[in-house]
Amino acid sequence: MASKSYIPLLFFMLLVVSSAYPFKKQQYKPCKHLVLYFHDIIYNGQNKENATSSIVAAPQGANLTILADEFHFGNIAVFDDPITLDNNLHSKPVGRAQGMYLYDTKNTYTAWLGFSFVLNSADYHGTINFVGADPLMQKTRDISVVGGTGDFFMHRGIATLTTDSFEGAVYFRLKVDIKFYECW
Amino acid sequence: MASKSYIPLLFFMLLVVSSAYPFKKQQYKPCKHLVLYFHDIIYNGQNKENATSSIVAAPQGANLTILADEFHFGNIAVFDDPITLDNNLHSKPVGRAQGMYLYDTKNTYTAWLGFSFVLNSADYHGTINFVGADPLMQKTRDISVVGGTGDFFMHRGIATLTTDSFEGAVYFRLKVDIKFYECW
Amino acid sequence: MASKSYIPLLFFMLLVVSSAYPFKKQQYKPCKHLVLYFHDIIYNGQNKENATSSIVAAPQGANLTILADEFHFGNIAVFDDPITLDNNLHSKPVGRAQGMYLYDTKNTYTAWLGFSFVLNSADYHGTINFVGADPLMQKTRDISVVGGTGDFFMHRGIATLTTDSFEGAVYFRLKVDIKFYECW
Repeated sequence: MASKSYIPLLFFMLLVVSSAYPFKKQQYKPCKHLVLYFHDIIYNGQNKENATSSIVAAPQGANLTILADEFHFGNIAVFDDPITLDNNLHSKPVGRAQGMYLYDTKNTYTAWLGFSFVLNSADYHGTINFVGADPLMQKTRDISVVGGTGDFFMHRGIATLTTDSFEGAVYFRLKVDIKFYECW
Repeated sequence: MASKSYIPLLFFMLLVVSSAYPFKKQQYKPCKHLVLYFHDIIYNGQNKENATSSIVAAPQGANLTILADEFHFGNIAVFDDPITLDNNLHSKPVGRAQGMYLYDTKNTYTAWLGFSFVLNSADYHGTINFVGADPLMQKTRDISVVGGTGDFFMHRGIATLTTDSFEGAVYFRLKVDIKFYECW
Repeated sequence: MASKSYIPLLFFMLLVVSSAYPFKKQQYKPCKHLVLYFHDIIYNGQNKENATSSIVAAPQGANLTILADEFHFGNIAVFDDPITLDNNLHSKPVGRAQGMYLYDTKNTYTAWLGFSFVLNSADYHGTINFVGADPLMQKTRDISVVGGTGDFFMHRGIATLTTDSFEGAVYFRLKVDIKFYECW
């Protein structure tokens, strides 16, 4: 599993100064590292059984089964998405990604995220809480891990999001590369 | 008051290694400890005077005075709830719990919380900011204290929620056991 | 620029004990300091071109182009506001403030904020993530900086908000004085 891959790093925990920004930037090594995927299927009025998220708020003139005009500006969706270890929607879930996203630009796709990973598997038991801006059109986007509980007690870090796949406006899959820099 | 109860712990600040997980888990002692209650009365169309929260978003087909079907999936409620030192709704409030919760599972009761305690009493002046997943059907649930201001300047910690009481879908009372592990 | 003003502080990084609360309070010096402004123009049904935010959720009986009665209790607005270095709406933006605010008291103006600064200028590249309570009628209000990315990697701090100007219920400008106390 991906989480094991950080173990060799334990032998190299010294801070490495990046030569590109010699006085400004340090490169920190994560104290824990996880790669997970989650899968979002938006309710469109016809997929009640499979849908894992719903539009619950929209600007004036928009509705709750079609994402709004202007790059979905103003839509809020609530979700309960399965988390998997690989990119297969049908793999056994190791937990749920729960919370909300909202679309917040009128001339491109960007979102703001507030959600948690609720993990309950042989390997992990606990929650990870995320907050941050998600400029969807960029290949990778960084958000903050603002806290955690259980196995992730008091952890902080950075999660790098990648849109691994999407199908129209109904399905998307996010790869979440979580690097914890503060472990307890 | 509960906040005083952590003082004896100051004499035992050494980290205690739990024997159950000898290589993995440490038990940390909080640097500050608070137990508070808050009381939520949901607007149902008929209790305008007493209500402290309102449903403001709902999935397609639902309305704003009755919590939605499917375990309220997709409802967002905004709240301004009194905080008390004991479990009596009519005790003198020491502050307000303000923010939102959203229901985010279709086959059980779970919520996602983003809110603040705004405290203004003889004992405490400041705010505490919370984010996290709340699987309501579990006896206790841990969320993250992601920051604070005033007396809680830069604090971080864990808040353990317990549903202390509820009446139908209109009233619930949460006990919030806040353990700060990072005090400034 | 304001961010340079903290450099002299580096020579005085010792903690200063405030004499007003000799046993309780310390005054910390920020490790980084930024002052920025952002500008919010709420959609009112007639300003589609200029509007930078929209009401997207409201309690029963309210609509999405007029802020609700009872001090706007229950309104959620999604925003994408320009950030400027000074108080001029027409200055060149250095980034965008993106996220949401919600009004959460029935008898005065208070809000709860969850948003990010997405900065992309010659001076700063990265995001800053904010969460907290905003009691609007107070001259200054403190919220939490819960994390950051890029130039603000893993930062934490306090942001002090001041309503610098407002025009009716359509435009407001916030001054945001960001003091980072945890820099990486």
